[in-house]
Amino acid sequence: MKIFDRPGFPNPARIRIVLAEKQLEPQVEFVSVDLIAAEHKQPAFLEKNPSGVLPVLQLDDGTFIAECTAITEYLDNLDGDPKLTGKTPKEKALIHMMQKRAETELLDAVGNYFHYATPGLGHDLQTFKSLEWAGRQEWGNRQRDKALNGMKYFNTVLESQPFVAGDDFSMADITVFAGLMFADAAGVAVPESFSPLIIWWAKVAELPSVSNRSGQMFVAEDLRRLGF
Amino acid sequence: MKIFDRPGFPNPARIRIVLAEKQLEPQVEFVSVDLIAAEHKQPAFLEKNPSGVLPVLQLDDGTFIAECTAITEYLDNLDGDPKLTGKTPKEKALIHMMQKRAETELLDAVGNYFHYATPGLGHDLQTFKSLEWAGRQEWGNRQRDKALNGMKYFNTVLESQPFVAGDDFSMADITVFAGLMFADAAGVAVPESFSPLIIWWAKVAELPSVSNRSGQMFVAEDLRRLGF
Repeated sequence: MKIFDRPGFPNPARIRIVLAEKQLEPQVEFVSVDLIAAEHKQPAFLEKNPSGVLPVLQLDDGTFIAECTAITEYLDNLDGDPKLTGKTPKEKALIHMMQKRAETELLDAVGNYFHYATPGLGHDLQTFKSLEWAGRQEWGNRQRDKALNGMKYFNTVLESQPFVAGDDFSMADITVFAGLMFADAAGVAVPESFSPLIIWWAKVAELPSVSNRSGQMFVAEDLRRLGF
Repeated sequence: MKIFDRPGFPNPARIRIVLAEKQLEPQVEFVSVDLIAAEHKQPAFLEKNPSGVLPVLQLDDGTFIAECTAITEYLDNLDGDPKLTGKTPKEKALIHMMQKRAETELLDAVGNYFHYATPGLGHDLQTFKSLEWAGRQEWGNRQRDKALNGMKYFNTVLESQPFVAGDDFSMADITVFAGLMFADAAGVAVPESFSPLIIWWAKVAELPSVSNRSGQMFVAEDLRRLGF
């Protein structure tokens, strides 16, 4: 199989962590997509994923699978031992519920703040986000407030259980981790009073599947091209 | 188990269709939530689902499951024969990919248009959507355009396959159906040239799990209270 992605960005990081958790990296050919040059918004990539976002999985039969939840379902079920998406109906339900909340209330909200209310990745890429829209700054700021509420929610969840969907590390933890990684890069700090969330974050960052690989935003080459 | 919902609204309809497909209705106690009176935004309901949206499933052990994807995963896997969410890794991946696209590109976009750029469900409920925001009309209109693009995408998909995720009716079809049902109520017409989508819509509306039950927006009592 092939993965079209770009290390150093939140959604690619989610699938890199899944691949490491499932020890599937040796079976994958990684194809780098030049996100900074907006390669993911060009026709050749849109044929792979009409939504124009990374990452995309290509199966050996040629089928393209987009959306992190879908890619994770595929990779996690390949060996018949789905430890990230749940085995029982109740596990599956809790993990999908928390993963969806992590997207809506945290990761997507941070992304919207970053792309609409900050310079984001610079002018060339922002043209794909409708820079000219007058209300974008206010809308983006509302999304930052939403992300902070999301952090508050997950902090409360983690007061009483070790991981986001219960006793075990799952797809939902990966999404919250990507949300905090993106928040950190976008300058949305986790409030210091959110101890359970901060302790969980440090614990997840030290997992073998996460450390040395996916915990950092942007690779050096991309940072140079962005002018940092 | 209990389902907290309100017939006649798009997300409750999704789970009503799942329950009918899985022949689980006799095992469910339905609890009506007064959406028109914003009961779903009050503390008693927010304890069940902090996101403040319907429907919510309560398991016999007391656990609350929110988010349609999560509820569907639970109900579809109860009998060990998941026909709506997929059996093989590839089926699961394709269904989750298309279901997510159906939410992002169609159902959520229509919902945002309805709540931000139209009078929606009236002033009392709109207060929960930040009516006072100056940019809301323009943002809402952009979401309508996004929904129309989503219809175009699913029309293209249905040119070459009978259902949204392939050969069989799945969770992804249910989400697209709910999207079109909401679009119809919100005055966003499917363009007449989208024949494959329109033919698919008519076919799904006639399924036993859909007809007589979930294909219509709003129940009569709610329409009266909304002033129609």
